[in-house]
Amino acid sequence: MPEAILDDISHRRYNPLRGSWVLVSPHRTKRPWQGQKEAANKVELPNHDPSCYLCPGNKRAQGDVNPKYDSTFVFVNDYSAVREQQAEYEPPAQDGSLATRLLKAESTTGKCYVITFSPQHNVTLADMPASAIVPVIETWTKLYTSHLDPHSPLAKVAKPTTMPPSGINGHLLDQPKQQYRYMQIFENKGQAMGCSNPHPHGQIWTTTSLPEEPEVELSNLKQYRREQGGSNLLQDYAELESEKGERTVFENTSFWAGCPWWGTWPFEIMVIAKEHKRALVDFDEQNNEDLAEVIAEITRRYDNLFETSFPYSMGVHQAPLSGTKEEIEASHFHMHFYPPLLRSATVRKFLVGYEMMAEPQRDITPEQAAKRLRDCGGALYRTRI
Amino acid sequence: MPEAILDDISHRRYNPLRGSWVLVSPHRTKRPWQGQKEAANKVELPNHDPSCYLCPGNKRAQGDVNPKYDSTFVFVNDYSAVREQQAEYEPPAQDGSLATRLLKAESTTGKCYVITFSPQHNVTLADMPASAIVPVIETWTKLYTSHLDPHSPLAKVAKPTTMPPSGINGHLLDQPKQQYRYMQIFENKGQAMGCSNPHPHGQIWTTTSLPEEPEVELSNLKQYRREQGGSNLLQDYAELESEKGERTVFENTSFWAGCPWWGTWPFEIMVIAKEHKRALVDFDEQNNEDLAEVIAEITRRYDNLFETSFPYSMGVHQAPLSGTKEEIEASHFHMHFYPPLLRSATVRKFLVGYEMMAEPQRDITPEQAAKRLRDCGGALYRTRI
Ligand SMILES: O=P(O)(O)O[C@H]1O[C@H](CO)[C@@H](O)[C@H](O)[C@H]1O
Ligand SMILES: O=P(O)(O)O[C@H]1O[C@H](CO)[C@@H](O)[C@H](O)[C@H]1O
Repeated sequence: MPEAILDDISHRRYNPLRGSWVLVSPHRTKRPWQGQKEAANKVELPNHDPSCYLCPGNKRAQGDVNPKYDSTFVFVNDYSAVREQQAEYEPPAQDGSLATRLLKAESTTGKCYVITFSPQHNVTLADMPASAIVPVIETWTKLYTSHLDPHSPLAKVAKPTTMPPSGINGHLLDQPKQQYRYMQIFENKGQAMGCSNPHPHGQIWTTTSLPEEPEVELSNLKQYRREQGGSNLLQDYAELESEKGERTVFENTSFWAGCPWWGTWPFEIMVIAKEHKRALVDFDEQNNEDLAEVIAEITRRYDNLFETSFPYSMGVHQAPLSGTKEEIEASHFHMHFYPPLLRSATVRKFLVGYEMMAEPQRDITPEQAAKRLRDCGGALYRTRI
Repeated sequence: MPEAILDDISHRRYNPLRGSWVLVSPHRTKRPWQGQKEAANKVELPNHDPSCYLCPGNKRAQGDVNPKYDSTFVFVNDYSAVREQQAEYEPPAQDGSLATRLLKAESTTGKCYVITFSPQHNVTLADMPASAIVPVIETWTKLYTSHLDPHSPLAKVAKPTTMPPSGINGHLLDQPKQQYRYMQIFENKGQAMGCSNPHPHGQIWTTTSLPEEPEVELSNLKQYRREQGGSNLLQDYAELESEKGERTVFENTSFWAGCPWWGTWPFEIMVIAKEHKRALVDFDEQNNEDLAEVIAEITRRYDNLFETSFPYSMGVHQAPLSGTKEEIEASHFHMHFYPPLLRSATVRKFLVGYEMMAEPQRDITPEQAAKRLRDCGGALYRTRI
């Protein structure tokens, strides 16, 4: 293997999905750490917390009362970053002046949802069996479907879901007021990732604009597709990785999950559909079960690694809600898990000075990270709640 | 002003230097915060700490002893992320296979320096008068000069500096073993920014590769220069902002400093040379004094804002050490300050889920941030040490 040497030398790796580079310094793991330590996660939480705005039956910030839900529950974020309606903004016409050339802005509207993963306050995805994660995926799919452009090729395969009067899972939600361009599904887990409530939940922001990251990925996916006679970069990549094995953490029939060649965070993981799936609506029941299994495997291994409730941000990338046929066909369902911990429950990797100014830098290699995550499968280190 | 409405609505702003977008949600500042709090900075530090590896006269990790320096001191990082010599890596030849197409790597060598800003353990740039910051700038300039490609047009203007036998400021340093491409000067300040030692210091990493960020900036600077008949994007931008004033924090004859239109971090600041300066070696004495004044003004205002030792990462972007004539001429000296605090000494902005997966998002607008920073000038809130 010519790559074996990359375990010892400083090198850069290329990320074809973003068209960017990462600096890898494997020898740097020997550095002693004297900086900030994260708080260890040892708080005992109740099954239901009367002061939690996500628990069933509780009152939220703006006065709404949560239903007594028994699986997932979706509502509009009380502090949404984008809103459905706002004052109009008409950017000044380009007149060749410095101001119109250099101070560009555009209005964005959208809708932000919160989704709880379980009625139980004191569990995380890592504590949940795959069968309990399936409803989370189904709810994501319903929400995605109900926002799909009716003219999208994806609308044909999607099981029809109208929101009112039934809402999602019987909980009332207004139909979106306009056609949005993109839906970002994500979860921030743990205080280190800016999460302010331990109740298991994620977020879904949908906007009139195609955000930066999916835009960059999509343009690289389109280019690869054109150059490689219709193949998909990520499908090809998953096939290659599944064959090589050294960066694989877990795989099943539908998905490959592993530490990508170009990963930035120490234990970063990507989940990639093995067949060409443009979005959640392309999944059948088996795919849903397989994705639930992958999510359970990853989150459990993360927790086992340092015997802590492992913080991360994760998100789904898939086809835009509305877009050109080429955009939809070039899209390929995948998930990113970005966890900050580096060496223990309390020592994280900081992507700061050099990383912000120059280039992301990592110490442990993706191959070393994948091996450690492969080796800590099995039951959750703590007893299930 | 058509822009006044941007104080109230969600919108995206365009960053022409990076070719990227940021989502701005001004109404979101009303969100209550229940998440992680940073530790407040109230530790009393001694003037000299016998266990600090940066204090004058102390022993470092690998056994070297620091000289009894009285201003700045430069040495090679004992845990460098890149090294001058390492085993050779020859990437496999492109043979059209998935592996050679998707698993790309290249070897990078380089040199990492640490620079102390003061012999005093318990000060920061905010505590130092501008006159004491001038030597820091001069040391950066000497280090940059001693790594410059002798064929660069910049080598002509640079005051000749050879490293051995005198090293930097009389401290011995080996001449670099090869010609490097780029030098990244930066500082991580505060535990929240991964800094593990409060002794005032920065870092300088120099590499055979042109890192990601300067590469992206440089390509946009080159394009603007071609399209605008030789003008410089940043020089034009500084002129525009200095005239408008609403995003200005501080300026003097040589530099504009303010919260850029497209800033991501709540109190992000850019410092831009008003005249076309390609790199530190283009500065005269007045420029050095003016830059020192700007750095003093920014760091003091940051500390005054929440009455705390304000964490940040800052860095210098300037011409590559070696490059094409076009690259050198399109480069324009500027600095970025990326501070994480949002609302108080303990509540920071997290760039997590949505920001990582979709698009950077900010709450307070750059205009609001600039006003607050303009309003907290004057003496440092705490008595000088
Ligand atoms: O070199 P230091 O100060 O030990 O380390 C700090 O700065 C480096 C350069 O930005 C980062 O790679 C590290 O994650 C950070 O902790
Ligand atoms: O919406 P939350 O959970 O209050 O907030 C968290 O996630 C958001 C989306 O990634 C971020 O913008 C915030 O900085 C973070 O604290």
